[in-house]
Amino acid sequence: MSVTLPQSSLFAAKAKNMGKSARSRARLIDAALAVFARERLESATINEITREADMANGTFYLHFKDKEELTSVVALSLAAEITREMDEAMADIDDAVERVSLGTRQFIDIASSRLNWGAAFLQAFWVCAELRAEVTLYLRRDLERGVALGAFNVTVDDFLVEMVGALVNTALFARINGTAGPEAGSKAAEMQLRLLGVDAERAHAVAWRSIA
Amino acid sequence: MSVTLPQSSLFAAKAKNMGKSARSRARLIDAALAVFARERLESATINEITREADMANGTFYLHFKDKEELTSVVALSLAAEITREMDEAMADIDDAVERVSLGTRQFIDIASSRLNWGAAFLQAFWVCAELRAEVTLYLRRDLERGVALGAFNVTVDDFLVEMVGALVNTALFARINGTAGPEAGSKAAEMQLRLLGVDAERAHAVAWRSIA
Repeated sequence: MSVTLPQSSLFAAKAKNMGKSARSRARLIDAALAVFARERLESATINEITREADMANGTFYLHFKDKEELTSVVALSLAAEITREMDEAMADIDDAVERVSLGTRQFIDIASSRLNWGAAFLQAFWVCAELRAEVTLYLRRDLERGVALGAFNVTVDDFLVEMVGALVNTALFARINGTAGPEAGSKAAEMQLRLLGVDAERAHAVAWRSIA
Repeated sequence: MSVTLPQSSLFAAKAKNMGKSARSRARLIDAALAVFARERLESATINEITREADMANGTFYLHFKDKEELTSVVALSLAAEITREMDEAMADIDDAVERVSLGTRQFIDIASSRLNWGAAFLQAFWVCAELRAEVTLYLRRDLERGVALGAFNVTVDDFLVEMVGALVNTALFARINGTAGPEAGSKAAEMQLRLLGVDAERAHAVAWRSIA
């Protein structure tokens, strides 16, 4: 058996002080991330994932029921990791307009720039209702904050959250495909802010401000 | 062999004065529409489609190379048909703001209300670059018209067209899923107009005006 190191050992690193089972599980998640970054979710096999993790094929089933379960876990792990990084980056920001703009820009930058996570995320997003709920919960909170503070003149409901989220996903897709460059995040944020009722001048200023 | 009439004979009806080959091709397109309306594109088989059309399985390959080719043709036929209906409905409307709003509302209504076309459209949309080009060409024309007339203060480029289009697709998806009702078109149109720089009051008035 050839030894193939995973592209990333992010989750394995986090699990390094945990029990053997948690460590194996984390290695499988890292391996799945590496495989999903290379090829479409649908065509990736359990065999490839265990090979990537340098584990026996049967080991997989000690940790996950099937590929779908692993996919959901990978997507949730991704979303949790990206959300955590974004929360860190925005800890000091109270203004809702700034938060939505920065959230969108950071999310697109993080998801598109690291380990092809963005592609795995977009593929998983439509498959996994838990992932959608997790990501949109975060967005919804900022939208509600903006309405409460009078910054946005919209009604926050599932439909609005889906529409604002669609702008993030579409911009991320364009960024990953290479049809949009690093400006995708600012462009998306500006469009979101206009949609939410922020006047054009402020939307532009906030969305294009350089990020420290 | 059991005789299963296609749910719709739209394209067969159009081809009724054409040659035998064109008529068979049209029947296969109608059959594919009926099958795609019932189940996901990925799981539909050529065998089911020819059965739906009441044709021998081998006949399929006289008209199409494979399922992917048929899918593209079905999506293009759908887009052409919907675009034709929309052009008819909007023949007398010059104002760009009204055109974008009405175009979005009509598209969502037509695509979601007839024969489950909407689901087939959304499934095909991401697979078929020709379809995306055809549908977005139409949207792009109205956006350029609006900028030329000073109604929209945006730069019309591929990215803008994708983002405005994503709002249509997301609203259509919500409508088909039942998470949004008949108001989905007006809500989407209002958000698009805001994004394009139309002031909130006018965006609301235009998007919610009753359609004759």
